[in-house]
Amino acid sequence: MFNLKIIIASTRPGRKGPAIGSWIYDLAKKNSAFEVTILDLAIINLPFFDEPHHPRLKKYQHEHTKNWSILIDNADAFIIVTPEYNYGYPATIKNALDFLYNEWNYKPVGFVSYGGIAGGTRSVQMLKQVVTCQKMMPIPESVNLPFFTKYLNEQEGFVPEEGIIESAGLMLAELAKWAAALKTMRKS
Amino acid sequence: MFNLKIIIASTRPGRKGPAIGSWIYDLAKKNSAFEVTILDLAIINLPFFDEPHHPRLKKYQHEHTKNWSILIDNADAFIIVTPEYNYGYPATIKNALDFLYNEWNYKPVGFVSYGGIAGGTRSVQMLKQVVTCQKMMPIPESVNLPFFTKYLNEQEGFVPEEGIIESAGLMLAELAKWAAALKTMRKS
Repeated sequence: MFNLKIIIASTRPGRKGPAIGSWIYDLAKKNSAFEVTILDLAIINLPFFDEPHHPRLKKYQHEHTKNWSILIDNADAFIIVTPEYNYGYPATIKNALDFLYNEWNYKPVGFVSYGGIAGGTRSVQMLKQVVTCQKMMPIPESVNLPFFTKYLNEQEGFVPEEGIIESAGLMLAELAKWAAALKTMRKS
Repeated sequence: MFNLKIIIASTRPGRKGPAIGSWIYDLAKKNSAFEVTILDLAIINLPFFDEPHHPRLKKYQHEHTKNWSILIDNADAFIIVTPEYNYGYPATIKNALDFLYNEWNYKPVGFVSYGGIAGGTRSVQMLKQVVTCQKMMPIPESVNLPFFTKYLNEQEGFVPEEGIIESAGLMLAELAKWAAALKTMRKS
């Protein structure tokens, strides 16, 4: 069983990330390959990167960094749930990534993105460049939600159509496959 | 032992790719983890992509595609040796990548890039986005050569300083590590 962390990138008042995050969390929980946790960056509440040393050295000065390090270190795989701001990723997720280094290494990451016509894909495309520098594999199987508000309602949260649920299933299956292979690299 | 293919991306008359490719080939051959082959795109001489079906289906109509498929299919890892044209990758390497799909899956790729002040890194950064779509892991350990012509001479070819040789050693070690892990994914 793999430890899967779902990271909710948006933190602004009125954000839709938690509704979409809860949906992918429920789906992932049904997959027996995973033990699943949500990491909501609004709750984790990291400041802008404030460590004096490169994270590669793990000489963390702050409690918030040490806590974040523990949460990421014991993960085997990630799903980043992200919107797109100005055709790019929000600062919150870049900042959360930049705080650590070794803790991310040799782990796969999938993406659930949401936005207008591009479905948040430009945000994801930029994130892919960042995560490979941290030795994460950004898997191509993803969930991208153009005009996502049509699937949101106040009573039930995020209720997508069947094709989207299928994409999520493919992403989860591939994440498990990568998680198994890359776990062997962390032991060696 | 892993089958490592070194792909020389540039094909223009007067190109410097073969000199740099020969250098990394000689270094890789000394690494007992690898059996090494050079794939020079100028010799392979693919036309612009001309298959009617998506490569995922492997319904290849042309001999050049079938031959290229065999060369890539039996590789365990790649090094792409590439210049930077207009801050991006040359069409030749994008075209060679686009011809196939399954043959690239679950394999790591390292980069040796050369150029002016940026050392070809912008070309590599764009390639990273492409290769993850084909389920390749673009490893961050790379060789990037700014103002590379200073290391070229007519008698000895490409003769870099010690730090560059160390970077290449790191890249080869990581490529072997990824090749071992990802090989298990192709069997399953």
